[in-house]
Amino acid sequence: MTTAVQFAPSTRTADVTDEDFLADFHHTTVYGATEAGGIDRQAGTPEHGAVRAWFRERAAALGMTVTVDGIGNQYATFTWIDDEPGVLIGSHLDSQPLGGRFDGTYGVIAALHAAARVNDEVRAGRLTPTHNLTVVDWFNEEGARFAPSIMGSSVMVGLLDREKALATTDPAGVTVKEALESIDCLGTDPAPEVAAYAEIHIEQGRILEREQTTVGAVTQSWYTQKLLVAVRGEQSHTGATIMSDRHDALVAASRIVLFTEDVVENFEPEKIVTSVGQFTVHPNSPIVVPREVDLVIDLRASKKQDVLDARDILRRQIADLAVERGIRIDVEDYDIRDIQHYPVDGVELTEKAAADAGVSCMRIETMAGHDSVAVNRIAPSVMVFIPSVDGVSHCEREFSTDADMVAGVTAFTQIVRRLVTGALDGTTPGEPFAGSDV
Amino acid sequence: MTTAVQFAPSTRTADVTDEDFLADFHHTTVYGATEAGGIDRQAGTPEHGAVRAWFRERAAALGMTVTVDGIGNQYATFTWIDDEPGVLIGSHLDSQPLGGRFDGTYGVIAALHAAARVNDEVRAGRLTPTHNLTVVDWFNEEGARFAPSIMGSSVMVGLLDREKALATTDPAGVTVKEALESIDCLGTDPAPEVAAYAEIHIEQGRILEREQTTVGAVTQSWYTQKLLVAVRGEQSHTGATIMSDRHDALVAASRIVLFTEDVVENFEPEKIVTSVGQFTVHPNSPIVVPREVDLVIDLRASKKQDVLDARDILRRQIADLAVERGIRIDVEDYDIRDIQHYPVDGVELTEKAAADAGVSCMRIETMAGHDSVAVNRIAPSVMVFIPSVDGVSHCEREFSTDADMVAGVTAFTQIVRRLVTGALDGTTPGEPFAGSDV
Repeated sequence: MTTAVQFAPSTRTADVTDEDFLADFHHTTVYGATEAGGIDRQAGTPEHGAVRAWFRERAAALGMTVTVDGIGNQYATFTWIDDEPGVLIGSHLDSQPLGGRFDGTYGVIAALHAAARVNDEVRAGRLTPTHNLTVVDWFNEEGARFAPSIMGSSVMVGLLDREKALATTDPAGVTVKEALESIDCLGTDPAPEVAAYAEIHIEQGRILEREQTTVGAVTQSWYTQKLLVAVRGEQSHTGATIMSDRHDALVAASRIVLFTEDVVENFEPEKIVTSVGQFTVHPNSPIVVPREVDLVIDLRASKKQDVLDARDILRRQIADLAVERGIRIDVEDYDIRDIQHYPVDGVELTEKAAADAGVSCMRIETMAGHDSVAVNRIAPSVMVFIPSVDGVSHCEREFSTDADMVAGVTAFTQIVRRLVTGALDGTTPGEPFAGSDV
Repeated sequence: MTTAVQFAPSTRTADVTDEDFLADFHHTTVYGATEAGGIDRQAGTPEHGAVRAWFRERAAALGMTVTVDGIGNQYATFTWIDDEPGVLIGSHLDSQPLGGRFDGTYGVIAALHAAARVNDEVRAGRLTPTHNLTVVDWFNEEGARFAPSIMGSSVMVGLLDREKALATTDPAGVTVKEALESIDCLGTDPAPEVAAYAEIHIEQGRILEREQTTVGAVTQSWYTQKLLVAVRGEQSHTGATIMSDRHDALVAASRIVLFTEDVVENFEPEKIVTSVGQFTVHPNSPIVVPREVDLVIDLRASKKQDVLDARDILRRQIADLAVERGIRIDVEDYDIRDIQHYPVDGVELTEKAAADAGVSCMRIETMAGHDSVAVNRIAPSVMVFIPSVDGVSHCEREFSTDADMVAGVTAFTQIVRRLVTGALDGTTPGEPFAGSDV
């Protein structure tokens, strides 16, 4: 489409009970539902398009004006006063392949209901806002189909070039532009100017659960970087090439996977995570010794120096391995993201809001990236967590309880009330972060 | 097509010099040529279709009658007398992805020229055959696109069901039947009855080169089996799941790759090879801890007991690993191929033929599978090797010298002369082999 979806604001009363929130949240899980209770709703797929169309309808029914920008971010706005910039709240509706139904989606539905509740108060004359309020559904936070992750918000804040993002292809060669057009989500509306941003999300770790605390006030993101590794051996015949003549890329790549797991032994437990998630073997034939493996190492730590040290250890081990195996291994630094500090004013705001709402609260760091990390570059941003059962995420078993979700909406509503009345006016956004170098 | 390609036998004189052979062989390398000097001519692709069409034209020009059977094997026959079964000689024209230009193709072109030379002798009245002579181009020996390997000959000898083979799909979902139709190679002609079979092939190892010997008389195949391994961990978030909460399928699978390489330390060097060639990670996203890896272990040894022992060691290690990592690992025996003894009469025939041709000869085992292993199930079969430079195969660097190729054709022609005059009449084929259990 070339023009944004526009719904006429309705005058009906908002549905603002906890049951209404739960009904909406659980309804979203039908879009891309998997047999094992998860969702598969990768960016720009028909399933993603379906839940986004539902979002537009639901927001319009609540009396909001819906617009779509040029990278497929959807905005639903309550305009109370002729005042810009406004407050932005939200998260994302896309998922990992065979992902969980809470990651991102909880934050969008929680924001929608917090907005409806605050709108009710404004209409009833119990609250006098100084900012309008917009709920955002960011495009492609997950980055599973189209790299990099956090795409829509990165374009919106100017960290990523829009044309470059639109030209990004998935493994089948489909561009972001084509995918957005196919789900009717490539708009032409301007993105709103942002006075402040807030996002609520599942923790995806187990700290809140272990500490029996309902809300986490996020203080900073972790330092993260990736290493793109290309292991280049020599293709040969599994049935005819004696072991001493081989230059097997898969054996060397397997050693690198184990180096990556073992490197954490050098650091404080639970303050660093290392992984290889993408690992592709060529030619991948049962009777051919592999010639090449392309893999991506993901390093994340609370302290920048720990990531730098882990990187150096791994690069040395990989260089030694290449010599030992008589092969070539190329290693490239990629997707470096500096630690992002959320404004202390916002952390304290979350603590006050939780107290107002009567829910327990603690300060916490985020290991994962979020859209708020990007938005915090241009506007003071608040990041809030609720507990994840067993700390698992990016899988169908991901779970948060109805009680925790409802408590989160209650606390988040208190945050939004304070933001639309100017609680972070004058607060400086977090320090710049390097963003994706894609 | 529904009827076989039929060319009218020509009366022109065969081109039987060494230069003619080399011109034909080197011409075939244009079909599917790669930049690095190899070929990519996987079964049923347009490149494979092109070289097979050339084969039909070339055989017809030599005065042969070309037929195609119901699994895409192509046969080119000199009919001298009303006598069936005849002698069958040949190999295959398909290749691995980014494979070498000698593997299989050398054997087909060598057989074509040996047949032309013998036909010249018959026409000149210098040789009186008791069998007719057919050159075969087997379909899908490599099995890279469609599993299992050695498909066309296995169907022809009754080891593999034709309908099942035709219904096999490649990773894109294309069936063997569709692929054969697309290259005009699904025929309706009967396969010939076979009195004896002979095949010449590059060694794909370095024994002949090391021993400075031109021809290998193959005595037996190695015992081989595969293990299908499914490592089932749990998907989680690379950025949010602490190390102790993970059940990373890729880390476990990497350990299995290293077990597979290390297990050879228990056996005599150069008498066993072990590999993992196929290794597929799910979901294969840079920020998701892998939930599943499917991999194929390939075990081959001169002695059956060595493969059985290696298998047992690996199964124990894998079972222990599953407990240690708290995941499930399924292991399935697959594609077991018993040692195949070629008839001693045929080995001695090769030794005599080499002596007649004035080329050096030694007895050798084959580590790799060949179509002759299947045909030896129904007819006494002779397998002959020529040297591979550096012993490398299934890669673009695969190489054999013109001199060795020419000497091989000379010796092979002597073998064919003896076979068409009944040298193996009355010889029992090798012991049955288990064949593919696909």
